[in-house]
Amino acid sequence: MDDMIGLGGDRATMLQAAKNLREEVRAGRWCDRTTGMARGIVQGNLVILPAEHAEDFRIFCERNPKPCPLIGMTEPGDPRVPALGDDIDLRTDLSGYRIFENGTCTEEVRDITKYWRDDFVGFVLGCSYSFEEALMQDGLKLRHIENGTKVYVYITNVPTVPSGPFCGPTIVSMRPFKPADAIRAIEITSRFPDVHGAPIHFGDPSMIGIDDISKPYNSPTPEIRPGEVPVFWACGVTPQAVMEEAKVPFAITHNPGHMLITDRLNAEFSTA
Amino acid sequence: MDDMIGLGGDRATMLQAAKNLREEVRAGRWCDRTTGMARGIVQGNLVILPAEHAEDFRIFCERNPKPCPLIGMTEPGDPRVPALGDDIDLRTDLSGYRIFENGTCTEEVRDITKYWRDDFVGFVLGCSYSFEEALMQDGLKLRHIENGTKVYVYITNVPTVPSGPFCGPTIVSMRPFKPADAIRAIEITSRFPDVHGAPIHFGDPSMIGIDDISKPYNSPTPEIRPGEVPVFWACGVTPQAVMEEAKVPFAITHNPGHMLITDRLNAEFSTA
Repeated sequence: MDDMIGLGGDRATMLQAAKNLREEVRAGRWCDRTTGMARGIVQGNLVILPAEHAEDFRIFCERNPKPCPLIGMTEPGDPRVPALGDDIDLRTDLSGYRIFENGTCTEEVRDITKYWRDDFVGFVLGCSYSFEEALMQDGLKLRHIENGTKVYVYITNVPTVPSGPFCGPTIVSMRPFKPADAIRAIEITSRFPDVHGAPIHFGDPSMIGIDDISKPYNSPTPEIRPGEVPVFWACGVTPQAVMEEAKVPFAITHNPGHMLITDRLNAEFSTA
Repeated sequence: MDDMIGLGGDRATMLQAAKNLREEVRAGRWCDRTTGMARGIVQGNLVILPAEHAEDFRIFCERNPKPCPLIGMTEPGDPRVPALGDDIDLRTDLSGYRIFENGTCTEEVRDITKYWRDDFVGFVLGCSYSFEEALMQDGLKLRHIENGTKVYVYITNVPTVPSGPFCGPTIVSMRPFKPADAIRAIEITSRFPDVHGAPIHFGDPSMIGIDDISKPYNSPTPEIRPGEVPVFWACGVTPQAVMEEAKVPFAITHNPGHMLITDRLNAEFSTA
Protein backbone atom coordinates (compact mmCIF):
# COMPACT_ATOMS: atom_id res chain seq x y z
CA MET A 1 0.00 0.00 0.00
CA ASP A 2 3.00 2.29 0.57
CA ASP A 3 3.36 2.68 -3.19
CA MET A 4 -0.08 4.35 -3.27
CA ILE A 5 0.75 6.80 -0.46
CA GLY A 6 4.05 8.22 -1.71
CA LEU A 7 4.79 9.68 1.70
CA GLY A 8 7.72 12.05 1.92
CA GLY A 9 8.72 11.42 -1.65
CA ASP A 10 9.88 13.76 -4.36
CA ARG A 11 7.70 14.89 -7.24
CA ALA A 12 8.25 11.70 -9.26
CA THR A 13 7.46 9.47 -6.26
CA MET A 14 4.25 11.39 -5.54
CA LEU A 15 3.11 11.22 -9.17
CA GLN A 16 3.92 7.50 -9.31
CA ALA A 17 1.85 6.91 -6.15
CA ALA A 18 -1.05 8.79 -7.77
CA LYS A 19 -0.76 6.65 -10.90
CA ASN A 20 -0.58 3.43 -8.86
CA LEU A 21 -3.64 4.37 -6.80
CA ARG A 22 -5.65 5.43 -9.85
CA GLU A 23 -4.82 2.14 -11.58
CA GLU A 24 -5.93 0.14 -8.53
CA VAL A 25 -9.18 2.11 -8.40
CA ARG A 26 -9.75 1.68 -12.12
CA ALA A 27 -9.17 -2.09 -11.86
CA GLY A 28 -11.72 -2.25 -9.02
CA ARG A 29 -9.12 -3.38 -6.49
CA TRP A 30 -9.24 -0.19 -4.36
CA CYS A 31 -12.84 0.45 -3.25
CA ASP A 32 -12.16 2.43 -0.09
CA ARG A 33 -11.99 6.19 0.54
CA THR A 34 -8.87 7.98 -0.72
CA THR A 35 -8.33 10.04 2.45
CA GLY A 36 -4.63 10.09 3.34
CA MET A 37 -3.62 8.39 0.08
CA ALA A 38 -1.36 9.82 -2.66
CA ARG A 39 0.20 12.41 -0.36
CA GLY A 40 1.08 15.72 -1.99
CA ILE A 41 -1.39 15.09 -4.82
CA VAL A 42 -4.53 17.14 -5.54
CA GLN A 43 -7.73 15.13 -5.03
CA GLY A 44 -10.97 16.39 -6.53
CA ASN A 45 -14.73 16.47 -5.95
CA LEU A 46 -16.78 15.40 -8.95
CA VAL A 47 -20.04 16.54 -10.56
CA ILE A 48 -21.29 15.11 -13.88
CA LEU A 49 -24.27 16.67 -15.67
CA PRO A 50 -25.93 16.45 -19.08
CA ALA A 51 -24.65 19.16 -21.44
CA GLU A 52 -27.92 21.10 -21.27
CA HIS A 53 -27.13 21.99 -17.63
CA ALA A 54 -23.38 22.38 -18.03
CA GLU A 55 -23.20 26.12 -18.69
CA ASP A 56 -25.52 26.91 -15.78
CA PHE A 57 -23.39 24.80 -13.47
CA ARG A 58 -20.11 26.27 -14.77
CA ILE A 59 -21.48 29.74 -13.94
CA PHE A 60 -22.67 28.41 -10.56
CA CYS A 61 -19.06 27.41 -9.78
CA GLU A 62 -17.81 30.80 -10.94
CA ARG A 63 -20.28 32.53 -8.61
CA ASN A 64 -19.48 30.27 -5.65
CA PRO A 65 -15.71 29.81 -5.74
CA LYS A 66 -15.38 28.93 -2.05
CA PRO A 67 -17.64 25.84 -1.99
CA CYS A 68 -17.17 25.07 -5.72
CA PRO A 69 -13.62 25.89 -6.87
CA LEU A 70 -13.59 24.55 -10.45
CA ILE A 71 -10.18 23.03 -11.26
CA GLY A 72 -11.06 20.92 -14.30
CA MET A 73 -13.87 20.37 -16.82
CA THR A 74 -14.43 17.91 -19.68
CA GLU A 75 -15.65 18.32 -23.25
CA PRO A 76 -19.19 16.92 -23.69
CA GLY A 77 -19.09 13.13 -23.88
CA ASP A 78 -15.36 12.98 -23.21
CA PRO A 79 -14.50 11.38 -19.84
CA ARG A 80 -10.93 12.73 -19.90
CA VAL A 81 -9.70 15.79 -17.95
CA PRO A 82 -6.38 16.75 -19.58
CA ALA A 83 -5.92 19.77 -17.27
CA LEU A 84 -5.57 17.41 -14.32
CA GLY A 85 -3.77 14.42 -15.84
CA ASP A 86 -3.11 12.64 -19.14
CA ASP A 87 -4.82 9.34 -18.45
CA ILE A 88 -7.78 10.30 -16.24
CA ASP A 89 -11.08 8.61 -17.08
CA LEU A 90 -13.98 9.92 -15.01
CA ARG A 91 -16.02 6.76 -15.70
CA THR A 92 -13.68 4.46 -13.79
CA ASP A 93 -11.18 6.47 -11.78
CA LEU A 94 -13.13 7.16 -8.58
CA SER A 95 -13.70 4.46 -5.99
CA GLY A 96 -17.27 5.58 -5.34
CA TYR A 97 -20.00 7.51 -7.18
CA ARG A 98 -23.51 8.66 -6.34
CA ILE A 99 -26.30 8.64 -8.90
CA PHE A 100 -28.90 11.43 -8.48
CA GLU A 101 -32.29 11.21 -10.18
CA ASN A 102 -34.60 14.21 -9.84
CA GLY A 103 -32.67 15.41 -6.80
CA THR A 104 -32.57 12.11 -4.95
CA CYS A 105 -29.54 9.89 -4.53
CA THR A 106 -30.83 6.61 -5.91
CA GLU A 107 -27.67 4.54 -6.01
CA GLU A 108 -24.02 4.37 -4.91
CA VAL A 109 -21.78 2.61 -7.41
CA ARG A 110 -18.07 1.92 -8.03
CA ASP A 111 -18.04 2.45 -11.80
CA ILE A 112 -20.25 4.60 -14.04
CA THR A 113 -19.26 3.21 -17.44
CA LYS A 114 -22.75 1.83 -18.00
CA TYR A 115 -24.34 5.20 -17.18
CA TRP A 116 -22.02 7.28 -19.36
CA ARG A 117 -23.67 9.31 -22.15
CA ASP A 118 -22.36 11.30 -25.10
CA ASP A 119 -23.74 14.53 -23.65
CA PHE A 120 -22.17 14.23 -20.18
CA VAL A 121 -19.91 17.02 -18.93
CA GLY A 122 -17.67 16.41 -15.92
CA PHE A 123 -16.65 19.10 -13.39
CA VAL A 124 -13.79 18.57 -10.95
CA LEU A 125 -13.73 20.83 -7.89
CA GLY A 126 -10.85 21.39 -5.46
CA CYS A 127 -10.95 19.48 -2.17
CA SER A 128 -9.91 20.32 1.38
CA TYR A 129 -7.45 17.41 1.51
CA SER A 130 -4.99 19.76 -0.25
CA PHE A 131 -5.13 22.44 2.42
CA GLU A 132 -5.30 19.90 5.25
CA GLU A 133 -1.93 18.64 4.10
CA ALA A 134 -0.55 22.20 4.19
CA LEU A 135 -1.97 22.69 7.70
CA MET A 136 -0.36 19.50 8.98
CA GLN A 137 2.96 20.37 7.32
CA ASP A 138 2.84 23.59 9.36
CA GLY A 139 2.51 21.52 12.53
CA LEU A 140 -1.22 22.07 13.14
CA LYS A 141 -3.19 19.10 14.48
CA LEU A 142 -6.49 18.22 12.83
CA ARG A 143 -8.88 16.77 15.40
CA HIS A 144 -10.86 14.53 13.01
CA ILE A 145 -7.62 12.99 11.74
CA GLU A 146 -6.25 12.58 15.29
CA ASN A 147 -9.54 10.91 16.26
CA GLY A 148 -9.68 8.82 13.08
CA THR A 149 -13.08 10.09 11.96
CA LYS A 150 -14.51 11.86 8.91
CA VAL A 151 -14.33 15.65 8.97
CA TYR A 152 -17.26 17.33 10.74
CA VAL A 153 -19.75 18.61 8.15
CA TYR A 154 -22.76 20.95 8.65
CA ILE A 155 -25.55 22.47 6.57
CA THR A 156 -25.61 26.27 7.01
CA ASN A 157 -28.15 28.99 6.26
CA VAL A 158 -25.60 30.75 4.04
CA PRO A 159 -27.15 30.61 0.56
CA THR A 160 -25.10 29.92 -2.54
CA VAL A 161 -25.50 32.39 -5.43
CA PRO A 162 -27.94 30.67 -7.84
CA SER A 163 -27.37 29.95 -11.54
CA GLY A 164 -30.16 28.38 -13.58
CA PRO A 165 -31.65 25.51 -11.54
CA PHE A 166 -28.63 25.38 -9.22
CA CYS A 167 -29.07 26.84 -5.75
CA GLY A 168 -29.09 25.76 -2.13
CA PRO A 169 -27.26 26.16 1.16
CA THR A 170 -23.50 26.22 1.64
CA ILE A 171 -22.21 23.07 3.31
CA VAL A 172 -19.22 23.59 5.61
CA SER A 173 -16.54 21.44 7.17
CA MET A 174 -15.48 22.32 10.71
CA ARG A 175 -12.10 22.00 12.39
CA PRO A 176 -11.62 23.17 16.01
CA PHE A 177 -8.50 25.18 16.91
CA LYS A 178 -7.16 27.41 19.66
CA PRO A 179 -7.31 31.06 18.39
CA ALA A 180 -3.58 31.33 17.60
CA ASP A 181 -3.75 28.11 15.56
CA ALA A 182 -6.99 29.27 13.92
CA ILE A 183 -5.18 32.43 12.77
CA ARG A 184 -2.37 30.29 11.34
CA ALA A 185 -4.93 28.03 9.62
CA ILE A 186 -6.62 31.09 8.08
CA GLU A 187 -3.26 32.41 6.85
CA ILE A 188 -2.36 29.07 5.25
CA THR A 189 -5.71 28.24 3.67
CA SER A 190 -6.01 31.75 2.21
CA ARG A 191 -3.06 30.75 0.00
CA PHE A 192 -5.15 27.93 -1.51
CA PRO A 193 -8.05 29.69 -3.24
CA ASP A 194 -8.57 26.70 -5.58
CA VAL A 195 -9.23 24.35 -2.68
CA HIS A 196 -11.87 26.34 -0.77
CA GLY A 197 -9.45 29.05 0.45
CA ALA A 198 -9.91 30.78 3.80
CA PRO A 199 -12.77 29.81 6.14
CA ILE A 200 -16.15 31.52 5.89
CA HIS A 201 -16.80 31.70 9.65
CA PHE A 202 -15.46 30.91 13.12
CA GLY A 203 -16.95 30.93 16.60
CA ASP A 204 -20.71 31.12 17.28
CA PRO A 205 -22.27 28.41 15.06
CA SER A 206 -25.75 29.98 15.22
CA MET A 207 -24.50 32.95 13.16
CA ILE A 208 -24.44 30.65 10.10
CA GLY A 209 -27.57 28.72 11.02
CA ILE A 210 -26.02 25.77 12.84
CA ASP A 211 -28.32 25.14 15.80
CA ASP A 212 -26.41 22.28 17.40
CA ILE A 213 -22.65 21.99 16.90
CA SER A 214 -22.75 18.51 18.50
CA LYS A 215 -24.79 17.17 15.58
CA PRO A 216 -22.91 17.33 12.28
CA TYR A 217 -24.54 16.17 9.06
CA ASN A 218 -23.27 12.69 8.29
CA SER A 219 -20.31 12.64 10.69
CA PRO A 220 -19.75 11.89 14.41
CA THR A 221 -20.07 14.37 17.28
CA PRO A 222 -16.97 16.58 17.22
CA GLU A 223 -14.59 16.94 20.14
CA ILE A 224 -14.09 20.67 20.84
CA ARG A 225 -11.71 21.21 23.76
CA PRO A 226 -11.75 24.13 26.24
CA GLY A 227 -10.25 27.26 24.68
CA GLU A 228 -10.89 26.04 21.14
CA VAL A 229 -13.21 27.69 18.62
CA PRO A 230 -14.87 25.93 15.70
CA VAL A 231 -13.60 27.18 12.32
CA PHE A 232 -15.82 26.61 9.27
CA TRP A 233 -14.67 26.18 5.67
CA ALA A 234 -16.93 25.96 2.61
CA CYS A 235 -17.05 22.29 1.63
CA GLY A 236 -17.01 20.35 -1.62
CA VAL A 237 -20.08 18.40 -0.50
CA THR A 238 -22.09 21.58 -1.26
CA PRO A 239 -22.81 20.49 -4.88
CA GLN A 240 -24.55 17.37 -3.57
CA ALA A 241 -26.97 19.51 -1.55
CA VAL A 242 -27.33 21.65 -4.66
CA MET A 243 -28.24 18.56 -6.76
CA GLU A 244 -30.96 17.80 -4.21
CA GLU A 245 -32.35 21.33 -4.58
CA ALA A 246 -31.95 21.59 -8.37
CA LYS A 247 -33.73 18.28 -8.99
CA VAL A 248 -32.22 17.93 -12.46
CA PRO A 249 -33.35 14.61 -14.00
CA PHE A 250 -29.92 13.01 -13.86
CA ALA A 251 -26.58 13.81 -12.25
CA ILE A 252 -23.59 11.94 -10.88
CA THR A 253 -21.26 13.01 -8.06
CA HIS A 254 -18.39 11.37 -6.20
CA ASN A 255 -19.26 9.51 -3.01
CA PRO A 256 -17.84 11.70 -0.20
CA GLY A 257 -14.28 10.65 0.65
CA HIS A 258 -13.94 8.78 -2.67
CA MET A 259 -12.13 11.48 -4.63
CA LEU A 260 -10.58 11.79 -8.07
CA ILE A 261 -6.80 11.31 -7.86
CA THR A 262 -5.16 13.81 -10.25
CA ASP A 263 -1.62 14.27 -11.54
CA ARG A 264 -1.33 17.75 -10.04
CA LEU A 265 0.65 18.56 -6.91
CA ASN A 266 -0.88 20.43 -3.95
CA ALA A 267 2.19 22.68 -4.03
CA GLU A 268 1.15 23.89 -7.50
CA PHE A 269 -2.12 25.14 -6.02
CA SER A 270 -0.50 27.44 -3.44
CA THR A 271 -0.37 31.12 -4.34
CA ALA A 272 2.51 31.69 -1.88
CA MET B 1 -3.14 70.32 4.44
CA ASP B 2 -4.25 68.27 1.42
CA ASP B 3 -0.69 68.35 0.10
CA MET B 4 0.41 66.38 3.18
CA ILE B 5 -2.27 63.72 2.78
CA GLY B 6 -1.78 62.77 -0.87
CA LEU B 7 -5.13 61.00 -0.92
CA GLY B 8 -5.91 58.94 -3.99
CA GLY B 9 -2.78 60.08 -5.75
CA ASP B 10 -0.26 58.18 -7.82
CA ARG B 11 3.18 57.19 -6.59
CA ALA B 12 4.69 60.63 -7.22
CA THR B 13 1.83 62.41 -5.44
CA MET B 14 2.12 60.13 -2.42
CA LEU B 15 5.89 60.61 -2.20
CA GLN B 16 5.49 64.37 -2.55
CA ALA B 17 2.94 64.41 0.29
CA ALA B 18 5.41 62.45 2.45
CA LYS B 19 8.16 64.95 1.65
CA ASN B 20 5.86 67.91 2.39
CA LEU B 21 4.74 66.45 5.72
CA ARG B 22 8.29 65.56 6.77
CA GLU B 23 9.44 69.10 5.97
CA GLU B 24 6.62 70.60 8.03
CA VAL B 25 7.52 68.33 10.94
CA ARG B 26 11.23 69.14 10.62
CA ALA B 27 10.46 72.88 10.61
CA GLY B 28 8.38 72.48 13.76
CA ARG B 29 5.17 73.53 12.03
CA TRP B 30 3.45 70.13 12.29
CA CYS B 31 3.36 69.01 15.93
CA ASP B 32 0.33 66.73 15.81
CA ARG B 33 0.02 62.97 15.35
CA THR B 34 0.58 61.65 11.82
CA THR B 35 -2.44 59.30 11.83
CA GLY B 36 -4.24 59.50 8.47
CA MET B 37 -1.50 61.67 6.91
CA ALA B 38 0.67 60.80 3.89
CA ARG B 39 -1.72 58.12 2.63
CA GLY B 40 -0.09 55.14 0.96
CA ILE B 41 3.22 55.84 2.72
CA VAL B 42 4.91 53.60 5.31
CA GLN B 43 5.07 55.23 8.75
CA GLY B 44 7.48 53.83 11.34
CA ASN B 45 7.88 53.31 15.08
CA LEU B 46 11.21 54.52 16.45
CA VAL B 47 13.70 53.27 19.04
CA ILE B 48 17.10 54.95 19.59
CA LEU B 49 19.72 53.33 21.82
CA PRO B 50 23.41 53.80 22.61
CA ALA B 51 25.60 51.51 20.46
CA GLU B 52 26.45 49.26 23.40
CA HIS B 53 22.82 48.03 23.43
CA ALA B 54 22.28 48.05 19.66
CA GLU B 55 23.20 44.45 18.87
CA ASP B 56 21.07 43.10 21.72
CA PHE B 57 18.11 45.13 20.51
CA ARG B 58 18.64 44.12 16.86
CA ILE B 59 18.50 40.49 17.95
CA PHE B 60 15.45 41.29 20.09
CA CYS B 61 13.67 42.53 16.95
CA GLU B 62 14.76 39.43 15.04
CA ARG B 63 13.31 37.22 17.77
CA ASN B 64 10.06 39.19 18.04
CA PRO B 65 9.14 40.04 14.45
CA LYS B 66 5.41 40.50 15.14
CA PRO B 67 5.68 43.32 17.71
CA CYS B 68 9.07 44.57 16.44
CA PRO B 69 9.33 44.23 12.64
CA LEU B 70 12.65 45.98 11.88
CA ILE B 71 12.40 47.90 8.60
CA GLY B 72 15.37 50.27 8.93
CA MET B 73 18.48 50.83 11.08
CA THR B 74 21.15 53.53 11.22
CA GLU B 75 24.92 53.42 11.46
CA PRO B 76 26.14 54.52 14.94
CA GLY B 77 25.96 58.30 15.27
CA ASP B 78 24.34 58.73 11.87
CA PRO B 79 20.74 59.99 12.06
CA ARG B 80 19.98 59.02 8.45
CA VAL B 81 18.06 55.88 7.37
CA PRO B 82 18.86 55.46 3.67
CA ALA B 83 16.79 52.25 3.41
CA LEU B 84 13.65 54.27 4.09
CA GLY B 85 14.37 57.58 2.35
CA ASP B 86 17.22 59.78 1.14
CA ASP B 87 16.69 62.80 3.36
CA ILE B 88 15.42 61.29 6.62
CA ASP B 89 16.94 62.75 9.81
CA LEU B 90 15.83 60.90 12.94
CA ARG B 91 16.73 63.93 15.13
CA THR B 92 14.09 66.20 13.64
CA ASP B 93 11.69 64.22 11.47
CA LEU B 94 9.19 62.99 14.06
CA SER B 95 6.59 65.29 15.58
CA GLY B 96 6.99 63.76 19.03
CA TYR B 97 9.62 61.79 20.96
CA ARG B 98 9.85 60.20 24.39
CA ILE B 99 13.04 60.26 26.45
CA PHE B 100 13.56 57.20 28.69
CA GLU B 101 16.05 57.28 31.58
CA ASN B 102 16.59 54.06 33.53
CA GLY B 103 13.26 52.72 32.26
CA THR B 104 11.17 55.77 33.04
CA CYS B 105 9.78 58.19 30.50
CA THR B 106 11.15 61.47 31.81
CA GLU B 107 10.23 63.83 29.02
CA GLU B 108 8.21 64.23 25.80
CA VAL B 109 9.88 66.48 23.23
CA ARG B 110 9.48 67.60 19.61
CA ASP B 111 13.12 67.54 18.57
CA ILE B 112 16.05 65.45 19.86
CA THR B 113 18.95 67.33 18.26
CA LYS B 114 20.27 68.42 21.64
CA TYR B 115 20.17 64.83 22.95
CA TRP B 116 21.88 63.26 19.94
CA ARG B 117 25.15 61.42 20.57
CA ASP B 118 27.83 59.94 18.34
CA ASP B 119 27.07 56.45 19.62
CA PHE B 120 23.31 56.47 19.01
CA VAL B 121 21.76 53.80 16.79
CA GLY B 122 18.23 54.26 15.44
CA PHE B 123 15.78 51.40 14.78
CA VAL B 124 12.65 51.92 12.69
CA LEU B 125 9.88 49.34 13.11
CA GLY B 126 6.85 48.78 10.88
CA CYS B 127 3.54 50.27 12.01
CA SER B 128 -0.07 49.11 11.81
CA TYR B 129 -1.10 52.21 9.82
CA SER B 130 0.17 50.34 6.74
CA PHE B 131 -2.11 47.36 7.22
CA GLU B 132 -5.02 49.51 8.38
CA GLU B 133 -4.91 51.22 5.01
CA ALA B 134 -5.03 47.82 3.27
CA LEU B 135 -7.99 46.78 5.45
CA MET B 136 -9.92 49.93 4.61
CA GLN B 137 -9.12 49.58 0.90
CA ASP B 138 -10.75 46.15 1.12
CA GLY B 139 -13.90 47.77 2.49
CA LEU B 140 -13.47 46.80 6.14
CA LYS B 141 -14.51 49.39 8.72
CA LEU B 142 -12.16 50.16 11.61
CA ARG B 143 -14.13 51.04 14.71
CA HIS B 144 -11.54 53.35 16.30
CA ILE B 145 -11.30 55.34 13.08
CA GLU B 146 -15.10 55.45 12.68
CA ASN B 147 -15.33 56.66 16.28
CA GLY B 148 -12.42 59.09 15.89
CA THR B 149 -10.35 57.65 18.73
CA LYS B 150 -6.88 56.15 19.13
CA VAL B 151 -6.64 52.41 18.50
CA TYR B 152 -7.44 50.24 21.55
CA VAL B 153 -4.17 49.05 23.12
CA TYR B 154 -3.67 46.40 25.86
CA ILE B 155 -0.81 44.87 27.82
CA THR B 156 -0.87 41.06 27.55
CA ASN B 157 0.75 38.22 29.46
CA VAL B 158 2.39 36.98 26.24
CA PRO B 159 6.13 37.38 26.88
CA THR B 160 8.50 38.61 24.21
CA VAL B 161 11.60 36.48 23.58
CA PRO B 162 14.40 38.22 25.53
CA SER B 163 17.74 39.41 24.17
CA GLY B 164 20.30 40.93 26.55
CA PRO B 165 18.47 43.37 28.83
CA PHE B 166 15.43 43.54 26.53
CA CYS B 167 12.35 41.65 27.62
CA GLY B 168 8.76 42.29 28.67
CA PRO B 169 5.16 41.70 27.68
CA THR B 170 3.73 41.94 24.19
CA ILE B 171 1.50 45.00 23.75
CA VAL B 172 -1.44 44.48 21.39
CA SER B 173 -3.81 46.69 19.45
CA MET B 174 -7.42 45.49 19.21
CA ARG B 175 -9.94 45.93 16.41
CA PRO B 176 -13.43 44.38 16.70
CA PHE B 177 -14.91 42.58 13.68
CA LYS B 178 -17.69 40.16 12.79
CA PRO B 179 -16.10 36.72 12.18
CA ALA B 180 -16.29 36.88 8.36
CA ASP B 181 -14.58 40.30 8.41
CA ALA B 182 -12.04 39.05 10.96
CA ILE B 183 -11.13 36.23 8.56
CA ARG B 184 -10.68 38.79 5.78
CA ALA B 185 -8.57 40.98 8.09
CA ILE B 186 -6.37 37.99 8.96
CA GLU B 187 -5.94 37.17 5.27
CA ILE B 188 -4.95 40.74 4.42
CA THR B 189 -2.62 41.43 7.35
CA SER B 190 -0.83 38.10 6.85
CA ARG B 191 0.44 39.63 3.59
CA PHE B 192 2.17 42.42 5.55
CA PRO B 193 4.75 40.59 7.70
CA ASP B 194 6.85 43.77 7.98
CA VAL B 195 4.04 45.69 9.64
CA HIS B 196 3.06 43.23 12.41
CA GLY B 197 1.50 40.65 10.05
CA ALA B 198 -1.44 38.49 11.10
CA PRO B 199 -3.03 38.90 14.55
CA ILE B 200 -1.76 36.90 17.52
CA HIS B 201 -5.19 36.23 19.06
CA PHE B 202 -8.94 36.70 18.73
CA GLY B 203 -11.91 36.12 21.01
CA ASP B 204 -11.58 35.50 24.76
CA PRO B 205 -9.28 38.31 26.04
CA SER B 206 -8.40 36.39 29.24
CA MET B 207 -6.47 33.83 27.16
CA ILE B 208 -3.75 36.47 26.65
CA GLY B 209 -4.00 37.97 30.12
CA ILE B 210 -6.42 40.82 29.43
CA ASP B 211 -8.73 40.85 32.45
CA ASP B 212 -11.01 43.68 31.36
CA ILE B 213 -11.56 44.40 27.67
CA SER B 214 -13.37 47.62 28.58
CA LYS B 215 -10.15 49.09 29.99
CA PRO B 216 -7.45 49.52 27.37
CA TYR B 217 -4.05 50.89 28.27
CA ASN B 218 -3.95 54.55 27.32
CA SER B 219 -7.03 54.59 25.05
CA PRO B 220 -10.81 54.94 25.51
CA THR B 221 -13.27 52.12 26.21
CA PRO B 222 -13.80 50.24 22.97
CA GLU B 223 -17.18 49.73 21.35
CA ILE B 224 -17.66 46.03 20.57
CA ARG B 225 -21.02 45.37 18.95
CA PRO B 226 -23.13 42.16 19.23
CA GLY B 227 -21.73 39.41 17.00
CA GLU B 228 -18.28 40.98 16.90
CA VAL B 229 -15.12 39.44 18.30
CA PRO B 230 -12.04 41.38 19.41
CA VAL B 231 -9.01 40.68 17.21
CA PHE B 232 -5.55 41.38 18.64
CA TRP B 233 -2.42 42.37 16.70
CA ALA B 234 1.09 42.74 18.15
CA CYS B 235 1.72 46.47 18.46
CA GLY B 236 4.68 48.76 17.88
CA VAL B 237 4.22 50.25 21.35
CA THR B 238 5.74 47.00 22.68
CA PRO B 239 9.32 48.44 22.61
CA GLN B 240 8.24 51.19 25.00
CA ALA B 241 7.11 48.60 27.57
CA VAL B 242 10.39 46.81 26.87
CA MET B 243 12.37 50.02 27.61
CA GLU B 244 10.55 50.21 30.95
CA GLU B 245 11.59 46.62 31.75
CA ALA B 246 15.15 46.85 30.40
CA LYS B 247 15.92 50.03 32.38
CA VAL B 248 18.82 50.93 30.10
CA PRO B 249 20.32 54.28 31.24
CA PHE B 250 19.13 56.18 28.16
CA ALA B 251 16.76 55.51 25.25
CA ILE B 252 14.52 57.51 22.95
CA THR B 253 11.31 56.34 21.28
CA HIS B 254 8.62 58.01 19.19
CA ASN B 255 5.62 59.39 21.03
CA PRO B 256 2.73 57.03 20.10
CA GLY B 257 0.91 58.35 17.02
CA HIS B 258 3.83 60.61 16.10
CA MET B 259 5.49 58.35 13.54
CA LEU B 260 8.43 58.59 11.16
CA ILE B 261 7.21 59.40 7.63
CA THR B 262 9.30 57.36 5.16
CA ASP B 263 9.67 57.40 1.39
CA ARG B 264 8.46 53.82 1.06
CA LEU B 265 5.01 52.84 -0.17
CA ASN B 266 2.73 50.51 1.79
CA ALA B 267 2.22 48.60 -1.46
CA GLU B 268 5.94 47.71 -1.47
CA PHE B 269 5.47 45.98 1.89
CA SER B 270 2.78 43.57 0.69
CA THR B 271 3.97 40.05 -0.10
CA ALA B 272 0.91 39.47 -2.32
